[in-house]
Amino acid sequence: MLRPAFQALDGQRAPGQTAPLSFGDDMAPLSARHPGWLWTTDMLTDGVDFDSRVHDWHAIGRKAMLVNLSDCAAMAARPHTALAAICVPRATPEPMVLDLIRGLRDAGLEHGCALVGGDFNTAPAPAVIAVTVAGCCEIGAQPARRSGARPGDRIFVTGQLGGSLLGRHLSPRPRIDLALRLNRELPLHAMIDISDGLSIDLARILEASGCGAHIEQFAMQQAVHADARELARRDGRSATEHALQDGEDFELIVVLPAEVEPAAQSLGLIRIGTVVEETGIKMLGRDGLAQPIVPAGWDHWR
Amino acid sequence: MLRPAFQALDGQRAPGQTAPLSFGDDMAPLSARHPGWLWTTDMLTDGVDFDSRVHDWHAIGRKAMLVNLSDCAAMAARPHTALAAICVPRATPEPMVLDLIRGLRDAGLEHGCALVGGDFNTAPAPAVIAVTVAGCCEIGAQPARRSGARPGDRIFVTGQLGGSLLGRHLSPRPRIDLALRLNRELPLHAMIDISDGLSIDLARILEASGCGAHIEQFAMQQAVHADARELARRDGRSATEHALQDGEDFELIVVLPAEVEPAAQSLGLIRIGTVVEETGIKMLGRDGLAQPIVPAGWDHWR
Repeated sequence: MLRPAFQALDGQRAPGQTAPLSFGDDMAPLSARHPGWLWTTDMLTDGVDFDSRVHDWHAIGRKAMLVNLSDCAAMAARPHTALAAICVPRATPEPMVLDLIRGLRDAGLEHGCALVGGDFNTAPAPAVIAVTVAGCCEIGAQPARRSGARPGDRIFVTGQLGGSLLGRHLSPRPRIDLALRLNRELPLHAMIDISDGLSIDLARILEASGCGAHIEQFAMQQAVHADARELARRDGRSATEHALQDGEDFELIVVLPAEVEPAAQSLGLIRIGTVVEETGIKMLGRDGLAQPIVPAGWDHWR
Repeated sequence: MLRPAFQALDGQRAPGQTAPLSFGDDMAPLSARHPGWLWTTDMLTDGVDFDSRVHDWHAIGRKAMLVNLSDCAAMAARPHTALAAICVPRATPEPMVLDLIRGLRDAGLEHGCALVGGDFNTAPAPAVIAVTVAGCCEIGAQPARRSGARPGDRIFVTGQLGGSLLGRHLSPRPRIDLALRLNRELPLHAMIDISDGLSIDLARILEASGCGAHIEQFAMQQAVHADARELARRDGRSATEHALQDGEDFELIVVLPAEVEPAAQSLGLIRIGTVVEETGIKMLGRDGLAQPIVPAGWDHWR
């Protein structure tokens, strides 16, 4: 995921690059000399993205790799190689570090991505893992972007959402194969992975595309995960709210023209709404009334 | 710099890679589909690699980029593009984050390397910056390795060493142009950048090459930086010890066959010793006596 803070530098031209670069997608172009190659970096911190008092180091390593592979899925790029930079507290026993590195490697290899090197440090500070992954689109294919949604398009998700904190957040399934198939078989207008929450990540597509969305309350029920219902029972918030706002589902939001809706559904996509001209996101109730939704989810400044 | 902890995974073959990968160099191959392209990652932590109470954020950003560009120099690769993953304490004001990102960008552009994206996070933890840089060797050139030193070879450094803590550590000058010229004009046997200290980084070359070294005490005097002498006056250790053990000089150690010594010296390289068959590093005094040197410097486990 490339972050808004970097957008201060947006529009800058790299040497030899013919078009301005964009910091607004999940991956960046690697070099003008390698068209179709993209790369991304994602950093996880102990106490924020994982909890080393609870999670084992192999699982933590796997997560650190998988969230990057999910960025590849978001761009419809196949991951090839990875580097990892690690910092652990000074007292960390070496076997734990090796478990962490093996977790990184194993999760990569499950998806054809080789961990080819890294940096290792210790500090009097919580553990931090930054993974960088390079990958490429299929021959002749363009990367999926955030900016191509148009009024009338249909909005889909690739799986049920919400309540990932109950455990799924630790072992995301990057939707690489599905993303490449969607990009090969359907006229993809926009795509993003859900790392910070459906409403906030959908808002990123809408902002990049200059339009808004209507989410249909009835359709949305199909996209609510059982974990969201379980969490709702515990905390009194609604399951739909969890599906809209919980982060770390790592499913994809997919925007397609209306005419391919049957094809999208035959690939297992769940339709949740429609792109509209008026900016903002509204929830359409069964009574036909529209309620605005304020995008909420994981805020990296909080 | 790729760290020994990763060597537990050494010998692993990446999909599509024809040779086993090595974690023992300063950069790793990006992909078998892009021969000559290499990448590296280096992570800096507040309180260890910089001190945000003293250093300004633009300078910190510059250092985080420059240490990676120094890895490119070590491999004789020209840097092209970079990504940065950042985590700062939650209360960090946005202008400071932008200064940090501008420092990263500015240092990159000084050396033809474009910052094309990144990840941004906050956490209740010291600031951490992980930069990844991709670059490539000149057409027809092979990357410089650590493993090619042979008995009889001469050992050079590209500049004076020691005492970088007095300030130079914050603004390293990556020796990219010199490294590419050395790789173009001379039969380079081995090269590394001095990030952890001359003796420890030389030991890495010797270990990879299966040989040892004699450092000549007299020649070594030419390689002692004025800052090493200043620090020696303050702390009572010898200036030579500082030159041998202080980290973060980011000059290069260059190993060349004896017959090109005049050519190397005409390029400004300082000869400090000779590669020998017997493993270990010894200091040859003017009296002809040899004293063993225990490699010491920055230890990432301490």
